[in-house]
Amino acid sequence: MGKTLDEFNAYQQRMNKKILAANDKTMKRIYNTDTNAYLAGAMDVKTKELLGLVASMVLRCDDCVRYHLLKAHENGVSTEEVFEVFGIANLVGGSIVIPHTRRALEFWEEISASEQ
Amino acid sequence: MGKTLDEFNAYQQRMNKKILAANDKTMKRIYNTDTNAYLAGAMDVKTKELLGLVASMVLRCDDCVRYHLLKAHENGVSTEEVFEVFGIANLVGGSIVIPHTRRALEFWEEISASEQ
Amino acid sequence: MGKTLDEFNAYQQRMNKKILAANDKTMKRIYNTDTNAYLAGAMDVKTKELLGLVASMVLRCDDCVRYHLLKAHENGVSTEEVFEVFGIANLVGGSIVIPHTRRALEFWEEISASEQ
Amino acid sequence: MGKTLDEFNAYQQRMNKKILAANDKTMKRIYNTDTNAYLAGAMDVKTKELLGLVASMVLRCDDCVRYHLLKAHENGVSTEEVFEVFGIANLVGGSIVIPHTRRALEFWEEISASEQ
Amino acid sequence: MGKTLDEFNAYQQRMNKKILAANDKTMKRIYNTDTNAYLAGAMDVKTKELLGLVASMVLRCDDCVRYHLLKAHENGVSTEEVFEVFGIANLVGGSIVIPHTRRALEFWEEISASEQ
Amino acid sequence: MGKTLDEFNAYQQRMNKKILAANDKTMKRIYNTDTNAYLAGAMDVKTKELLGLVASMVLRCDDCVRYHLLKAHENGVSTEEVFEVFGIANLVGGSIVIPHTRRALEFWEEISASEQ
Repeated sequence: MGKTLDEFNAYQQRMNKKILAANDKTMKRIYNTDTNAYLAGAMDVKTKELLGLVASMVLRCDDCVRYHLLKAHENGVSTEEVFEVFGIANLVGGSIVIPHTRRALEFWEEISASEQ
Repeated sequence: MGKTLDEFNAYQQRMNKKILAANDKTMKRIYNTDTNAYLAGAMDVKTKELLGLVASMVLRCDDCVRYHLLKAHENGVSTEEVFEVFGIANLVGGSIVIPHTRRALEFWEEISASEQ
Repeated sequence: MGKTLDEFNAYQQRMNKKILAANDKTMKRIYNTDTNAYLAGAMDVKTKELLGLVASMVLRCDDCVRYHLLKAHENGVSTEEVFEVFGIANLVGGSIVIPHTRRALEFWEEISASEQ
Repeated sequence: MGKTLDEFNAYQQRMNKKILAANDKTMKRIYNTDTNAYLAGAMDVKTKELLGLVASMVLRCDDCVRYHLLKAHENGVSTEEVFEVFGIANLVGGSIVIPHTRRALEFWEEISASEQ
Repeated sequence: MGKTLDEFNAYQQRMNKKILAANDKTMKRIYNTDTNAYLAGAMDVKTKELLGLVASMVLRCDDCVRYHLLKAHENGVSTEEVFEVFGIANLVGGSIVIPHTRRALEFWEEISASEQ
Repeated sequence: MGKTLDEFNAYQQRMNKKILAANDKTMKRIYNTDTNAYLAGAMDVKTKELLGLVASMVLRCDDCVRYHLLKAHENGVSTEEVFEVFGIANLVGGSIVIPHTRRALEFWEEISASEQ
């Protein structure tokens, strides 16, 4: 498993822990909502992760993109589907999404390689 | 069928026609890509419209939201699913998405009423 | 009391009620967090409303700006303070905030006139 | 001359006057910088107005777009050039710029008609 | 004192000096306005820095966040207050602010450690 | 030639190649439109690159800024002109553009040094 993926996970876990330890009610509520919003409901988890991914891409949040790529992979999203999400994100959000697409693809390849 | 929905459709069609009539190559290519990106591929049309909807909501583009609500309705998206898209959009994009959610719901109700 | 202010309040209340009536858990959690985040804590309510106002201005959300102007007025924010918020918002967010500042000032004048 | 154009100009002038009358130093400095940034320098006024226009479009500020369309028209920008700005704005900023392009074209037609 | 903090300060000072040395009038006016906007007025410096911080967070500008965290620290802002700013920023700006909150907290800890 | 510039070019070329190799129609259309939008038309290439640069700056896309700085340099844009673009970008987009201006200037200096 590649280093970037490990580093991303380690940093995210360490800082999330610190943020939650501060016991700020608003931050805790947001983390709680964030966890629950992607659970299965009228839509299944896979579709919700695709929604989280495209929203993160058009808002150009690399770490959010990485998080949802990990979840998308866990939920059986294929490389073809990921590319169609990239297409819609770049169409709706414009060519400023291209640099994020490059980094997203690099991370996706790392995730895909890590499971073998 | 309500007036807002009619007005929206009429204005959009009238101005799109003018934009395309100007024969600017870049604008024509973008319109062409916009049409094709939502066709069935690795993902079905319904899923793609949900992606277009959530991307439009977090980027806070009311007219884009209206367009994708119309398409979502045509492709059998339920009110429960629309609300789950609203939830993810408001979580990822923040409380600034709330005013757009109010207008989106109003439009969704109009679309739903128009078919009866 | 002016019409715009009345209309704003009526529309907001009517649609918020509908959104909450749909019982979508994510939307309800976000509304709940939104209510609680501005309660007194380490910072007083007035300071928090100023924060909500400047955040809404730089993100260019007119309805959010109106909401926080109402709350700021209720909590004793002066016109001089409002203008200093406008200044920081226009500096940080750029001249694209100017049109929102025009509408914010118009609404602030209406709020101020409504109490007389 | 059409009503929208008149209304836009009247509202803008009335509110700008009020904003400046409040004597907030930051707001006055920003207005002052805004006036001076588009004066001829290493680039001519026309080029600078094209820059102001494309920046306003990708940031999706309708009133800013209107202002720069007026200035662009005064400085001899052609309809072909306006469409090329539209093209770059829609490419870089994505399909969320399309609704603003519709309104921009409508305003441009009104400006063009008003001079005859 | 940690390296990140030193590097941030050194890079910022070096490049700001170069930008100002170019003598571009617009850039100089913006730097000048930026300095003056946060001086005491109807609001005190601490409140203004909190406004600068929340605006920088919702606009997701890490270097701006760092700058205002430094200023907030100098003006006696507590860790509890910083977390309440984080809360409002994440509520208004959405979960895309979370990665910036992680980096902001890391920098805040470094500032806090550097004074001991 | 500096390392940053080399790395930027190498990474961009490597990832663009992979993106295009995936044969996603939407992504290919967007890349194709991106190439064609900056060709000479009613406006010359230099003006179009200035438009691409200012749009990239206000949307705060560092890699897009770098790309257009390279193209601007190839098309004879002067340092004075680049600074006037910086000025308009910082005015329209606000002080959150300042960190991107620092990095843009650093890259511009590297491009300028690389040709000697």
